[in-house]
Amino acid sequence: MHRRRFSGIVLALITLQSAISAYSQTGALVFQTDFGLKDGAVSAMKGVAFGVSPELKQFDLTHEIPPFNIWEGAYRLEQTVAYWPAGTVFVSVVDPGVGSNRKSVVAKLKTGQFVVTPDNGTLTLLAEAPGIDSLRQIDESVNRLKGSGDSYTFHGRDVYAYTGARLAAGKISFTEVGPLLPDPVIRLPYQQATVKTGLILGNIPVLDVQYGNVWTNIRASLLATIGIHYGDTILVEILQGKKQVYRGAMLYGTTFSAVPEGKPVAYSNSLLQLAFGINMGDFASTWHVGSGNNWTVKVQKQRTDHSRAK
Amino acid sequence: MHRRRFSGIVLALITLQSAISAYSQTGALVFQTDFGLKDGAVSAMKGVAFGVSPELKQFDLTHEIPPFNIWEGAYRLEQTVAYWPAGTVFVSVVDPGVGSNRKSVVAKLKTGQFVVTPDNGTLTLLAEAPGIDSLRQIDESVNRLKGSGDSYTFHGRDVYAYTGARLAAGKISFTEVGPLLPDPVIRLPYQQATVKTGLILGNIPVLDVQYGNVWTNIRASLLATIGIHYGDTILVEILQGKKQVYRGAMLYGTTFSAVPEGKPVAYSNSLLQLAFGINMGDFASTWHVGSGNNWTVKVQKQRTDHSRAK
Amino acid sequence: MHRRRFSGIVLALITLQSAISAYSQTGALVFQTDFGLKDGAVSAMKGVAFGVSPELKQFDLTHEIPPFNIWEGAYRLEQTVAYWPAGTVFVSVVDPGVGSNRKSVVAKLKTGQFVVTPDNGTLTLLAEAPGIDSLRQIDESVNRLKGSGDSYTFHGRDVYAYTGARLAAGKISFTEVGPLLPDPVIRLPYQQATVKTGLILGNIPVLDVQYGNVWTNIRASLLATIGIHYGDTILVEILQGKKQVYRGAMLYGTTFSAVPEGKPVAYSNSLLQLAFGINMGDFASTWHVGSGNNWTVKVQKQRTDHSRAK
Repeated sequence: MHRRRFSGIVLALITLQSAISAYSQTGALVFQTDFGLKDGAVSAMKGVAFGVSPELKQFDLTHEIPPFNIWEGAYRLEQTVAYWPAGTVFVSVVDPGVGSNRKSVVAKLKTGQFVVTPDNGTLTLLAEAPGIDSLRQIDESVNRLKGSGDSYTFHGRDVYAYTGARLAAGKISFTEVGPLLPDPVIRLPYQQATVKTGLILGNIPVLDVQYGNVWTNIRASLLATIGIHYGDTILVEILQGKKQVYRGAMLYGTTFSAVPEGKPVAYSNSLLQLAFGINMGDFASTWHVGSGNNWTVKVQKQRTDHSRAK
Repeated sequence: MHRRRFSGIVLALITLQSAISAYSQTGALVFQTDFGLKDGAVSAMKGVAFGVSPELKQFDLTHEIPPFNIWEGAYRLEQTVAYWPAGTVFVSVVDPGVGSNRKSVVAKLKTGQFVVTPDNGTLTLLAEAPGIDSLRQIDESVNRLKGSGDSYTFHGRDVYAYTGARLAAGKISFTEVGPLLPDPVIRLPYQQATVKTGLILGNIPVLDVQYGNVWTNIRASLLATIGIHYGDTILVEILQGKKQVYRGAMLYGTTFSAVPEGKPVAYSNSLLQLAFGINMGDFASTWHVGSGNNWTVKVQKQRTDHSRAK
Repeated sequence: MHRRRFSGIVLALITLQSAISAYSQTGALVFQTDFGLKDGAVSAMKGVAFGVSPELKQFDLTHEIPPFNIWEGAYRLEQTVAYWPAGTVFVSVVDPGVGSNRKSVVAKLKTGQFVVTPDNGTLTLLAEAPGIDSLRQIDESVNRLKGSGDSYTFHGRDVYAYTGARLAAGKISFTEVGPLLPDPVIRLPYQQATVKTGLILGNIPVLDVQYGNVWTNIRASLLATIGIHYGDTILVEILQGKKQVYRGAMLYGTTFSAVPEGKPVAYSNSLLQLAFGINMGDFASTWHVGSGNNWTVKVQKQRTDHSRAK
């Protein structure tokens, strides 16, 4: 009889341990959309996810992606994904083609995070780094909120949030998302950073909108290959298409306060990429600099008096 | 002696199981206000709720309700509540009459969610669907943050957040909120959707602000009653008071991409109600369409050449 | 053999209980920044904190502090901290001097909350009330996200979020933050509220931006010292520098609805400080009132006909 009770207790303990580890296994679910925060759309998505599992840890990347701007969605994901641990599930819904024949997919990244999204270019930059381990198409015959079949336009809630929540909560495995897709993801074209003798060419994928800083796709480590180091003065040109928008020299420094207030400075941003700012000011507004595929940056080391004299 | 130890262990197990189920019983607490996110008001509410129970799962519906716009608060609740499970507690504070004699109430909906709010019209639409099961007035002699008696103006924090948190955490039952109110809730007047022969009349309760789509209170399923189906062209009139603001024909389609970019389209939105948009554009801005009680919509099937010939 | 099994079970129970109390020991982590919510910066901070401990309860104070406005950051903290329990860890990053020689610190408040921040004035108002118990400088040789050494500009993520998360999760004690700092915190100069015979002088630290109410730093309880009570009419002057921006009489009431719509009212705000509003209106916009160190308020009781006759 003691043995039976023992077994019962041990069983109860195992049950308890499972319950507790279920808590700790529950990964993060991180949402990104172009929905804004003025209506109930984001909250409806979170309610669906909460209904899948109250223990999910739900977070936001941003909901202020400019409407339909797939490129910026791709960029914000690249900027953020690396700071979340493997197993984190991102749900990214910037979906101008909702209802068209773009595929609904889940990408497993080589670093172990997942991205649930329409395959419309959102994965452009993640496909380069860290790279996509495998891609599955969402089988909506099973991975769709019950009773939502009549709604053609809110896949974000009925398919993406629902599937992302089930994956993050361990209710389905990655395999159960749907069939493997052999083809590569859809990629948006854009200008890559290139190094020529004494010159680096790149583009401006995005602005640091809150402060008006200008971010480039040029890895700061590239600067050393043309002999630029902290403390050097560099010459920067910015072009929109073929039109020169800015041309000027500035310090390449480690801090904004290395230059006087109101003066421009080049620095390595939080992504370790070259960026331009004004100490206590707004570079983008001051010089009317925007972002996107047709914005180009040219960077070179400024010649010194000595070299000019040669 | 073995038996006593057994009993101790069994007791400990029961305590543990209670502790664990307490976690899973803790429902969601969802906030809606017109406070915005620029100051600390929302965070103070969440701090009070966290003080009630650290295990609460706290979420937001929106804090961007236009100041004092009770109608929009009512609409956002109706849009969202159904996607959260029974037991979820909503705290909605759009309260131009704070300090006046409007009642502070908790409504239990027929679908099992709760809404903590001033009874000033916020419950107008939920009272229609899903309907209110019962209504209680908050007894502030017990359900008010300790030491907050001197503050007349922040009931959102001191009464609503505090009471909502205690209800969601199971610290009080619905009965302990306060006395039952026999009267119906305060309802704001508005124009309902009506069907006449060959014509549907409705209003525009709200805009889909992020994309500039125009939402109506006409259930899409009503369209079939006057012979309108997907693929048909419909004639839409929009009036502000008696002034015609828009008149035009458009496809009633299942997706935005069913029409060329820049063209209008009628569709069934995520609430399964009739809405108007422009593919890759902004219908509301383009045609200066707003929302509210005095905005009217008329919809009919466009006569074909054949019918015009009759 | 039974005893050994008992011991094993008891040990397992103790482990389980520790695991469960670890959940309940995990405090809240509350973020405030001037980053805005349009990019991935806040989410990266939360991802780092989630990586430290998935069980942390993460919240926001606001991310809409105007860029570089340390004063407003200080004010929002003072407004909010008291509503969060002891042990709560605030991470506040308004850091125009990032990369300069300002110190990175953790302040333990006399009420038991912690604030992780650059020591640049953010702690000005908390140093007055509730007061700082002790201050430690963050030792970045241990309290910095691994692999982030090359990024000079995102201390918010690599140092502040990381250290705040480790402190809130109990991975480090307050002592392990780094060495005690003997000096007082950096304080921004500002005009304090003062009482003269029949007159109170104060300033406008901040606007209640969402509603356009004007908040002062005058404790409402001070009014009684010059004979002002609810129901009295008071004379209010507002100056920007030496220029008079507003002068008028208004009721000192307990609710906005104590005056007709469109009329001004003085009241005690949620911080129990004197504030001015317009019932259903926007005082700040109507009278072009701003906030900051150079905004001054003068308040006196309006003389009655009787007193004027004397």
